[in-house]
Amino acid sequence: MRATELHLVTLRQPPAEADIASHRWLVRGGFIRRVTAGVYAYLPLMWRVLRKVEAIIREEMDGTGALELRLPALQPAELWRRSGRWDTYTAGEGIMFNLRDRQGRELGLGPTHEEVITTIAADLIRSYRQLPVSFYQLQTKFRDEIRPRFGLMRGREFIMKDAYSFHGNEEDLRCYYRIMDGAYGRIFSRCGLKVLAVQADSGAIGGAASQEFMAVAEAGEDLVLSSGDGRYAANQERAQSLPSPPVPLGVAEDRLFATPGQASIEAVCGAHGLNPSQTLKVLLHRACFAHGPHQPVLTVLRGDQEVNTVKLINVLSSLLADRGTLLALERLDADALNNHGLQLPVGFLGPDLPDHAIEGAPNLMGSFVRIVDATAADLAGFVCGANVVDQHRRVPGWSALDVSFTRADVRAAQPGDRCCHDPHVVLTATRGIEVGHIFQLGRKYSTALEANFTTEGGGSEPMWMGCYGIGVSRLAQAAVEQNHDDKGILWPLSIAPFEVVISVANGQEQEQRQLAEGLYGELGAAGVDVLLDDRPERAGVKFKDADLLGIPWRVVVGRDAAKGQIELKQRSKSQALTMASSQLLGKLLPQLQRQRQGMVPEEGV
Amino acid sequence: MRATELHLVTLRQPPAEADIASHRWLVRGGFIRRVTAGVYAYLPLMWRVLRKVEAIIREEMDGTGALELRLPALQPAELWRRSGRWDTYTAGEGIMFNLRDRQGRELGLGPTHEEVITTIAADLIRSYRQLPVSFYQLQTKFRDEIRPRFGLMRGREFIMKDAYSFHGNEEDLRCYYRIMDGAYGRIFSRCGLKVLAVQADSGAIGGAASQEFMAVAEAGEDLVLSSGDGRYAANQERAQSLPSPPVPLGVAEDRLFATPGQASIEAVCGAHGLNPSQTLKVLLHRACFAHGPHQPVLTVLRGDQEVNTVKLINVLSSLLADRGTLLALERLDADALNNHGLQLPVGFLGPDLPDHAIEGAPNLMGSFVRIVDATAADLAGFVCGANVVDQHRRVPGWSALDVSFTRADVRAAQPGDRCCHDPHVVLTATRGIEVGHIFQLGRKYSTALEANFTTEGGGSEPMWMGCYGIGVSRLAQAAVEQNHDDKGILWPLSIAPFEVVISVANGQEQEQRQLAEGLYGELGAAGVDVLLDDRPERAGVKFKDADLLGIPWRVVVGRDAAKGQIELKQRSKSQALTMASSQLLGKLLPQLQRQRQGMVPEEGV
Repeated sequence: MRATELHLVTLRQPPAEADIASHRWLVRGGFIRRVTAGVYAYLPLMWRVLRKVEAIIREEMDGTGALELRLPALQPAELWRRSGRWDTYTAGEGIMFNLRDRQGRELGLGPTHEEVITTIAADLIRSYRQLPVSFYQLQTKFRDEIRPRFGLMRGREFIMKDAYSFHGNEEDLRCYYRIMDGAYGRIFSRCGLKVLAVQADSGAIGGAASQEFMAVAEAGEDLVLSSGDGRYAANQERAQSLPSPPVPLGVAEDRLFATPGQASIEAVCGAHGLNPSQTLKVLLHRACFAHGPHQPVLTVLRGDQEVNTVKLINVLSSLLADRGTLLALERLDADALNNHGLQLPVGFLGPDLPDHAIEGAPNLMGSFVRIVDATAADLAGFVCGANVVDQHRRVPGWSALDVSFTRADVRAAQPGDRCCHDPHVVLTATRGIEVGHIFQLGRKYSTALEANFTTEGGGSEPMWMGCYGIGVSRLAQAAVEQNHDDKGILWPLSIAPFEVVISVANGQEQEQRQLAEGLYGELGAAGVDVLLDDRPERAGVKFKDADLLGIPWRVVVGRDAAKGQIELKQRSKSQALTMASSQLLGKLLPQLQRQRQGMVPEEGV
Repeated sequence: MRATELHLVTLRQPPAEADIASHRWLVRGGFIRRVTAGVYAYLPLMWRVLRKVEAIIREEMDGTGALELRLPALQPAELWRRSGRWDTYTAGEGIMFNLRDRQGRELGLGPTHEEVITTIAADLIRSYRQLPVSFYQLQTKFRDEIRPRFGLMRGREFIMKDAYSFHGNEEDLRCYYRIMDGAYGRIFSRCGLKVLAVQADSGAIGGAASQEFMAVAEAGEDLVLSSGDGRYAANQERAQSLPSPPVPLGVAEDRLFATPGQASIEAVCGAHGLNPSQTLKVLLHRACFAHGPHQPVLTVLRGDQEVNTVKLINVLSSLLADRGTLLALERLDADALNNHGLQLPVGFLGPDLPDHAIEGAPNLMGSFVRIVDATAADLAGFVCGANVVDQHRRVPGWSALDVSFTRADVRAAQPGDRCCHDPHVVLTATRGIEVGHIFQLGRKYSTALEANFTTEGGGSEPMWMGCYGIGVSRLAQAAVEQNHDDKGILWPLSIAPFEVVISVANGQEQEQRQLAEGLYGELGAAGVDVLLDDRPERAGVKFKDADLLGIPWRVVVGRDAAKGQIELKQRSKSQALTMASSQLLGKLLPQLQRQRQGMVPEEGV
């Protein structure tokens, strides 16, 4: 294609709206334009990138035997009510855009398609002879994000590849899950992404096991904890680790002591020569479920630990499964308690805070659900708040307290923690961008939506399901986040908008123009995706734009055109190679061939 | 692909939901499944068809120099308020799904993208040097249809190709419009559709000129009026014609006469020996505009003519442009008038019905807008209602009535009317399915959204715009509506889910299986899109399914496999050709080559 036909519009200044490099470069390069918060137009250059990403995904998905189809974005509320997800996804912090049509019927805009595909599978699949089967689609999805940001990273409308597989038994599901795992690895590597596969929380999707694919990047919103030996990596949301052993604290007798103004663990420890691992941390939350009153929750951790809210939500959801979906979990700090009309000795709370402490608060009914993290439960003696302002208490053991708890893992693993699989290895932190997520769903949706099949023995059973997502538009931006410098983007060749740009240094010179046109024709005929920069601009502008756009190879046709000489330069290298134009194809084509497969070019080119 | 991997599920019975043949066959063949009213899943077979249609459209659009991009479905209300279309599209009979996000901001789900693309063009294009430019996308669109029906024909979610062009002057717009017209012709013909290009009303999109592309089909929802000489074709909504001359009526003097119980034109004419063309027809409407009170409208036509509501809406919108958008036009028949608390002598109304007749009705303010169609205005004398029950009046001429009218063309052209371009030719009616629509928009959107460019002379002017749509999913179903028989679909080869099916008559026979596998490999290697029906089903079931699915060519490997013989049959022919399997490629490939270009196969194959 010719640059004069492509209508390139690049910006000199970084856009005000962009916080991270990839977002800045995509806007400056004319790849995307914001239409409203979290909603972008993909301009022609970006669309070329996305079509290449889609083509790679299609090839790999087809290779697993998955069948491409297209499900609707509009989904009737009834379907989501049958799976029990309508409330989670539309009330509280739910992220599904929803509306009523002219007949007043409720519809959601699909952020995901388990309900729709399960209903269709129930209609199409009757017998074990039809299993397994896997469907996928490349589709625009919608999420009413609380904080849309970072361009395509956290958008409210985005392109996703989602796949759903159906199986006659769990072993078959696991087997296909491993096939998908392999396909995902190939997709990301073919797209030129450095990706880490990590254990993940299954969240609102549900299911037994799930794995995320994280594009490693400082600007990533997710924190990954991994072991140096390569044997463990998990999203912090679900990571497990061995806590450091506590500093022993012998407590002879149950005793109150004054802690005037010492309303934090640091203050108490500082004033009394204690280690935070010798104390308890008490947190209050309000859990809002789909059914029943709002539930007060009291959580106890060892003083040096932090709570992992995702783990806490999972524990509460499972403990109080009869209340339906957990719609929101509100932290009750001093301000929030005030708003509920409660005056509690915050900073001095103990695990035995009595239930009557919250009596009278209209939005908090009944007694606490009390959860203790293993780190706290395993302490012999400890220091904790005495439920009285300016007073703490030394407690010789849990039996001294007249309350009972549910023991659970609700602490956040931290960088530096020892690994569960090997205490000699510690966890280190990496930031990542979630570009893929695969789930073993089990039979959650097939049971709820009655997607049954007739077994070989003649019985009827719900199908086993897996689901597999890739954030297509996010992946494209993640590639930029991993591949840019101070001049612009360095696209991996396989997803670059063009493989090669031919820059005519001076379009007024007939010799330059003719040689460039000749090479443009030759490269095109050889199947190279080539852009001819034929704009009436100065050479400097063309080179700057070529760097900004990130096209992997640049051919410069300049002063030496008369001698039949050109320059060949990789975007990622500073040195150019001068050669006879007749040598270009012989040099370039083998390298392109390598790079299209996700390999790097040979040295010295 | 192998049928065992494709998970074919065909239905024996036509689905209850389907009213027209194409809808029935698409459901029975397992091409589509309904998810909710007007919302369908495209199953793998259908997705193959749609991808082929999309590929043809892409080739032809790229050929016009248009650049592919992707605009978001979610559109902020502000943009539509700036163009003045938010109310038209969301209030009253407006068809835009709309919602509020978690911040309470209003968003619409794009049924069309003039506002978004014009804003982006305003951002990207500054100078005449950047013009002309044309963008297109293949995208899911949304319409909250009043009556979704006929499968993909009138859906609430559907796939559209929409393109938008920007120009420095009107002549350049007209020139590109003609290029698009040509591309549209090629697209439909390559997809195997019989299409009629007709003049169209521009409706809510607006603009100077527009043309629809109608797939000719009995089940079509649109009525096309065309002249036998091929020089005129128009959607009835906007068709013009010469009315038949009225039967002359000499009226000597203004005179009332009794018409007891004769509340229709037929009754009055029957009882008094009159011809309907000698009478006036008086219609009342209520027009609801975005601003100002609801407007009563009195429309007069010659008694033998029908009103064309689209024309009437256009006239009112233009007459009362200061009231903003016309949101709804309600016909005030006897029941409606009753609901408004009015007792009028319906059936006996005259054009001079006084304004005080509607005084006191809370939803009808002010005096009538009075519109007279040319057919009525040109009558010398006529019979009309006397505004008193059981009384009509002979009127010698319009000057006898003390009211004034706006003269306009609001009558519906009818089959049998004489053509304007040649009174010796009459209009005939054809039913059609609108599969494409191209518009010369002019500067309506660029003016409203301030999409200006700097002219060569240094001035600033709004750009000239065109827009061009194709209903992609509707087109695919229209192809079925035009190509089916009592056994199923006959897909045009260029958009068929597969070009060839190889049916193994008896999969137990090793010789049949081996020969079929061999041919499957050969055809695949030759670039043929081939399906191998390797299911363990009886031959009859396979043949029935092949007919139902509508694959253009069938190769049967049966009893004569041992002799190396096969049968080749076209879906559209009843006769099969027996040949040596070694002859197959030589016979078949040249025909496929023809058909991929939209040509028919040679005779005798």
